[in-house]
Amino acid sequence: MTQIYNRVALIGLGLIASSMCHAMRRAGLAGEIVGYARSAETRAIAREINLCDHVYDSAVDAVKDADLVVLCVPVGAMGAVAAEIGPALKPGATVSDVGSVKRTVIDAVAPHIPQGVHFVPAHPLAGTEHSGPRSGFAELFDNRFCIIVPAEGSDRAAVGRVSDLWRGMGSNVDEMDPDHHDLVLAVTSHTPHLIAYTMVGVADDLSRVTDSEVIKYSAAGFRDFTRIAASDPTMWRDVFLNNKDATLEILGRFTEELFALQRAIRQGDGDHLFDYFTHTRAIRRSIVEAGQDTDAPNFGRGPAKPK
Amino acid sequence: MTQIYNRVALIGLGLIASSMCHAMRRAGLAGEIVGYARSAETRAIAREINLCDHVYDSAVDAVKDADLVVLCVPVGAMGAVAAEIGPALKPGATVSDVGSVKRTVIDAVAPHIPQGVHFVPAHPLAGTEHSGPRSGFAELFDNRFCIIVPAEGSDRAAVGRVSDLWRGMGSNVDEMDPDHHDLVLAVTSHTPHLIAYTMVGVADDLSRVTDSEVIKYSAAGFRDFTRIAASDPTMWRDVFLNNKDATLEILGRFTEELFALQRAIRQGDGDHLFDYFTHTRAIRRSIVEAGQDTDAPNFGRGPAKPK
Repeated sequence: MTQIYNRVALIGLGLIASSMCHAMRRAGLAGEIVGYARSAETRAIAREINLCDHVYDSAVDAVKDADLVVLCVPVGAMGAVAAEIGPALKPGATVSDVGSVKRTVIDAVAPHIPQGVHFVPAHPLAGTEHSGPRSGFAELFDNRFCIIVPAEGSDRAAVGRVSDLWRGMGSNVDEMDPDHHDLVLAVTSHTPHLIAYTMVGVADDLSRVTDSEVIKYSAAGFRDFTRIAASDPTMWRDVFLNNKDATLEILGRFTEELFALQRAIRQGDGDHLFDYFTHTRAIRRSIVEAGQDTDAPNFGRGPAKPK
Repeated sequence: MTQIYNRVALIGLGLIASSMCHAMRRAGLAGEIVGYARSAETRAIAREINLCDHVYDSAVDAVKDADLVVLCVPVGAMGAVAAEIGPALKPGATVSDVGSVKRTVIDAVAPHIPQGVHFVPAHPLAGTEHSGPRSGFAELFDNRFCIIVPAEGSDRAAVGRVSDLWRGMGSNVDEMDPDHHDLVLAVTSHTPHLIAYTMVGVADDLSRVTDSEVIKYSAAGFRDFTRIAASDPTMWRDVFLNNKDATLEILGRFTEELFALQRAIRQGDGDHLFDYFTHTRAIRRSIVEAGQDTDAPNFGRGPAKPK
């Protein structure tokens, strides 16, 4: 793989940025990788583990000579970061981001991008339940999708280079418009996360079932929800506040369906339940066939280690 | 491990029964294991893979000389099977089951157990998204819990032997009364499954998002739901019909919490969301510490294989 950018600056050094460091290095995609994180502790960890070539104490210093600047901060912080770095961006540079919501990020960031700098929003659909600079690994994006959401009038050459970067990091690249992106993600990511958080909260609050029972007996389904509900709270708060309309729409449909199933249970309508459960089985097969999940039972988790 | 039963008969030869075959053999817990399944196809597969020592064409023949009979059929079929085999049970034998609901199973099975035969209901909290006699494996129960739910006046020696069998198959054993069992499982298993089925159904029905998009972009959270929603439809139909009250109660609490979060999203109340999401993170840690799940990112699934 050939180098695509001479100097890449990552603003924010969490799971996605640290995985990008490892993935760019693995493929030799960047001449130099520099970074910045708002928290002094995060910067110290990034330096300690030699995450990138240089960690700056200010975002402005980090972006100064960068050919590509990637905003890897929570969605709600994108606008303020863009305002801060805008005046320091090098002419001809490209700004991208990795936010899970695209419409509000574009609206917040675009006004701060100076003439002669390209803005190419992107969203890698990959993650784990772990956070912070130590959580990154080079394989995170392998065979996952990165959705590029070109802003109005985005320079095609700049879009092409960002796409090449993601392909070089192992991803498949698709393009989408921002509103469709936000709807698709409300279905495949945002609403599932909200539901998982809710279910875990309910289990925790039910006084007649002790926490210890919830924990001991979690292997019968519940533990899968707790993985998603362990995701970064700041990131997810911002996702819901910034993808309000699409999330509320999907939530509305979800509760409608849930009420129909609840009614079937109350009325003892086994045929309705059976048909619904048969129908949903097929999607799993398609996801496994598309290489987006493992067919190994229980995701290939072995038996838990003895206590 | 010493042999606990001379002859064990498994009625129903799906995931749980076939895993029991492998686990009992691994530890030498049974002198002989025989089986019966209602479907001729299942019986043929069981014979082909030598799942147990003998597969009978009738449940009555299978249980005749058995010291332990385990009912491994969907919860809704337990009563009819018990009625059929009741008269053929050997005096002094024990009947157990592996149903995910206990109150209705006890009510349906107990009347058919003759004097001098012991009934010891049980529920191993283990499973995968796969079904049928080929899906079993010896490690399924390792370090998982099996809940024994002794019926009114259960013989303590018979309860002890069933408990020893499950310990010998790798499980931790707890005892519980039927109503509490059904409530705990409604929280840790039944409601999570219903929610996962619902979310997958919503995604499949949303015409503005194509199935292909749902599948391609599933790694951002949705795919975890599809695993649970790939579970056996007959088994789960019966679970909901037979644990109606507890499931409806937990569903009521779930929608109440979901509406509170939905309201926070609509009103832009980020603090409420952040506090909720922080709170639910701790349970995950406890489950991993209790040895009930892996701490590896994404359950240790590697990157998907290239297509």
